Amino acid sequence: MNENRQGFLFQCLRGAGQVFFMENALTGLLFLVAIAYASFAGGDWATTIGALVGLVVATLTARLLECDEASITSGLFGFNGILIGIAMPTFITASPELWFYVIVGAAMSTVVTAAMGATITKSWGIPGSTGPFVLTGWLLMAGAYAFGALDIASEQPKLVSDYVQGAEVIPSSVELVQIFFRNIGQVFLLGNEISGVIILVGILIASRPAGIAAVLGSLIAMIAAIVLRADPSSVSQGLFGFSAVLTAMAIGVVFLKTSPKVIAYALLATIVTVFLQGAYDVLMSPLGLPSFTAPYVLTLYLFIVPKKLLAPHPHKRVREHLVGKAADAPTK
Amino acid sequence: MNENRQGFLFQCLRGAGQVFFMENALTGLLFLVAIAYASFAGGDWATTIGALVGLVVATLTARLLECDEASITSGLFGFNGILIGIAMPTFITASPELWFYVIVGAAMSTVVTAAMGATITKSWGIPGSTGPFVLTGWLLMAGAYAFGALDIASEQPKLVSDYVQGAEVIPSSVELVQIFFRNIGQVFLLGNEISGVIILVGILIASRPAGIAAVLGSLIAMIAAIVLRADPSSVSQGLFGFSAVLTAMAIGVVFLKTSPKVIAYALLATIVTVFLQGAYDVLMSPLGLPSFTAPYVLTLYLFIVPKKLLAPHPHKRVREHLVGKAADAPTK
Amino acid sequence: MNENRQGFLFQCLRGAGQVFFMENALTGLLFLVAIAYASFAGGDWATTIGALVGLVVATLTARLLECDEASITSGLFGFNGILIGIAMPTFITASPELWFYVIVGAAMSTVVTAAMGATITKSWGIPGSTGPFVLTGWLLMAGAYAFGALDIASEQPKLVSDYVQGAEVIPSSVELVQIFFRNIGQVFLLGNEISGVIILVGILIASRPAGIAAVLGSLIAMIAAIVLRADPSSVSQGLFGFSAVLTAMAIGVVFLKTSPKVIAYALLATIVTVFLQGAYDVLMSPLGLPSFTAPYVLTLYLFIVPKKLLAPHPHKRVREHLVGKAADAPTK
Repeated sequence: MNENRQGFLFQCLRGAGQVFFMENALTGLLFLVAIAYASFAGGDWATTIGALVGLVVATLTARLLECDEASITSGLFGFNGILIGIAMPTFITASPELWFYVIVGAAMSTVVTAAMGATITKSWGIPGSTGPFVLTGWLLMAGAYAFGALDIASEQPKLVSDYVQGAEVIPSSVELVQIFFRNIGQVFLLGNEISGVIILVGILIASRPAGIAAVLGSLIAMIAAIVLRADPSSVSQGLFGFSAVLTAMAIGVVFLKTSPKVIAYALLATIVTVFLQGAYDVLMSPLGLPSFTAPYVLTLYLFIVPKKLLAPHPHKRVREHLVGKAADAPTK
Repeated sequence: MNENRQGFLFQCLRGAGQVFFMENALTGLLFLVAIAYASFAGGDWATTIGALVGLVVATLTARLLECDEASITSGLFGFNGILIGIAMPTFITASPELWFYVIVGAAMSTVVTAAMGATITKSWGIPGSTGPFVLTGWLLMAGAYAFGALDIASEQPKLVSDYVQGAEVIPSSVELVQIFFRNIGQVFLLGNEISGVIILVGILIASRPAGIAAVLGSLIAMIAAIVLRADPSSVSQGLFGFSAVLTAMAIGVVFLKTSPKVIAYALLATIVTVFLQGAYDVLMSPLGLPSFTAPYVLTLYLFIVPKKLLAPHPHKRVREHLVGKAADAPTK
Repeated sequence: MNENRQGFLFQCLRGAGQVFFMENALTGLLFLVAIAYASFAGGDWATTIGALVGLVVATLTARLLECDEASITSGLFGFNGILIGIAMPTFITASPELWFYVIVGAAMSTVVTAAMGATITKSWGIPGSTGPFVLTGWLLMAGAYAFGALDIASEQPKLVSDYVQGAEVIPSSVELVQIFFRNIGQVFLLGNEISGVIILVGILIASRPAGIAAVLGSLIAMIAAIVLRADPSSVSQGLFGFSAVLTAMAIGVVFLKTSPKVIAYALLATIVTVFLQGAYDVLMSPLGLPSFTAPYVLTLYLFIVPKKLLAPHPHKRVREHLVGKAADAPTK
């Protein structure tokens, strides 16, 4: 049994759980249930199939490439693949070419994960997190516009000037509850509040503090988005909250040790994420691309990197420059 | 008194001065005067208020985060904040939400400054310089398009094909003098030639060579922009010169030790900055975003990084690759 | 004679050869012949003149900056310059300002090459490859739109929604042969199949395995682009294959030691490059910029970087964070 838990199935389930930082197979299973429920409710199973394909292919690729064993076992090579697997059928009509695209894309997400481990993690201790999903997802979606065999269903590129600014709308209490849970579900691209509930249960099973951070992140994002009058339709679908949920968890609980100061820092980061959600929506819309979790990823990278004893460069001479040699050798 | 000079007020004044690399409180004070003069002339005090708010919040955030003491004292955490504080009210209509935006944005600029210190400065000795302002400013501006509570006043996104190429226009001598000083004022987003004069005086007080570099940078940029026939209206407002002024100072005096070779290198960098000004204007216009100091920032990063003894990778095997293991262990 | 081979002429010829990773002066000479043949066939010599100017200026700049001797001798500072020199006159109408632009641009490509050596190569072992050409080329092209003295001849920016998706077209066998060789020629921006033949001969003279990789890369790209129904006109001009050719050579032969596993890895990378070709075409078209070799460059960077023993960051506390200090010092 213990050996079994090291096996491929458990690696995959933990991979699903790691989307919310949880190295817990049961949590991962509940997440898959949430995905399946949304497929059931929407009558479209392509996203669930894609989730499974993406998860399996990404994890398998890591094994074939002989990536770090412990990381594979923790599910760290699966969570970007499952997101690719959900995202592609969400935006691209199902076809044999789509599945080829998902398989190559999931394998690519593993390569990108390994690449981030060998660069920004190695040098600066930045977790790659869902960065590989965002990068791979954007490139695949953009590519789909160029290939006749891949049909982008929904997105309509628009100019910044066409961007709909929100009117002053205060949602009803029922809507507020729906938004609260959709903010959680949308991390898996699920605009379904029941799925959000299932996911939150999954998180709480694995970690009480992480669950509380998710709850607070969703609330803060909801308030900030409504106060700043973001597009009500986007807010209603949970699109202004899911990145903020991840930021609140990542900065407040997962990567830093919770303390009053860390909580204040996480609050700042969560509000910044809401700002960046607006920014990315505007910046990506002319390209016909969704933001994915980019607002969370950029916030995480920026907020996690400041380290003790590492100061900005002073406005003084740099060292050992190719041209400014004299600076280093005063006696010419 | 000496202790006082370590105090918060002086940290802020030096922060203003560091926009032009000058760790000098009097210089910073003169820069604030230049900003206030432009507000007085234009009858709009929001930018001056924003400058003060941004400067104070950014510096205070660095203290709360317990960033490097010496850097705070030198003003290295204030100069990106002051620029955020000027830029936001320049482009976004004043409102309570704007001030919330400025405060969060200025705090964010400090986090980004610390992040750059812990990454590109740590690993490659690249000064972050006004990079945090550019990144934060772009994201905040883009976000403003998405929020109904924030109203972008002036910018009109346009396609590359709409881009107005300049006719052959030779400005009059009076205009040339105005452009010369606006090139300096626009570093603080001030299209006011008197402000440019005050700023130049402030620089010369702190450093004669830096002042000369600023003068030469402004002249070279003016000539290059006119010869290449950049949009005359942009040239006239000083928009083709302010990044070049910073490049000339940074490469020619601040970060490299002045020598004939360094001067030639700085000349190349300054001309490249004018090219990049055109490039960024074109690349940012479809997004409805100004270039800010991005042309200077990219030029600085590229030109300051080449180091002695660090060569390009040869077109030969890389080491210790995950897949290409055989390359390292010939005996399988 | 041996000393002569260290001389400037040979440095330049090797620089031409290094576009396809070949440190071989004869190969470089054949590449120049291929460029000249395309000029002859098209009746436009500006690209050939540009190639020579770019090659000489970039190599000379490296000598003046006293860059790494061995790298200069190997031609590693010339191959980005020659590409700048071909690309600019391909898209911008010849004029005195254009030649000024090419000269500054070629010098800039050397600075960028040195900058990449001191950053991504130093820290992560990533070869800069044609990255400097892509970055410099994009910035110069974008700038040209802003300058009245520089006239962009052909490119028409278009929205993503205007992007022409390919109909199902099976090219004839003659066309297939043409495409096969144009896929090689387009690395030098030459849509001429005879030039492609000359270039392939040049590669085979220097390295049999590299030549085979080029052949396979061209074939795989052709098949993938046709199956996915890319724009037939782009496929026909070889625009869907040239980056894939470089990827196949770089991953399969040059930077990793060929083995069955490496071949499988290179196959994945080559298919990813075709996807990215579509992506970049779509992402660049609203900006009115060509993709250049960006699809190859990004694929190379992502696929070459994964290293043994370097794992992704676990979803656990980061070390020595500025704010989360308690994590490191449990006893406060």
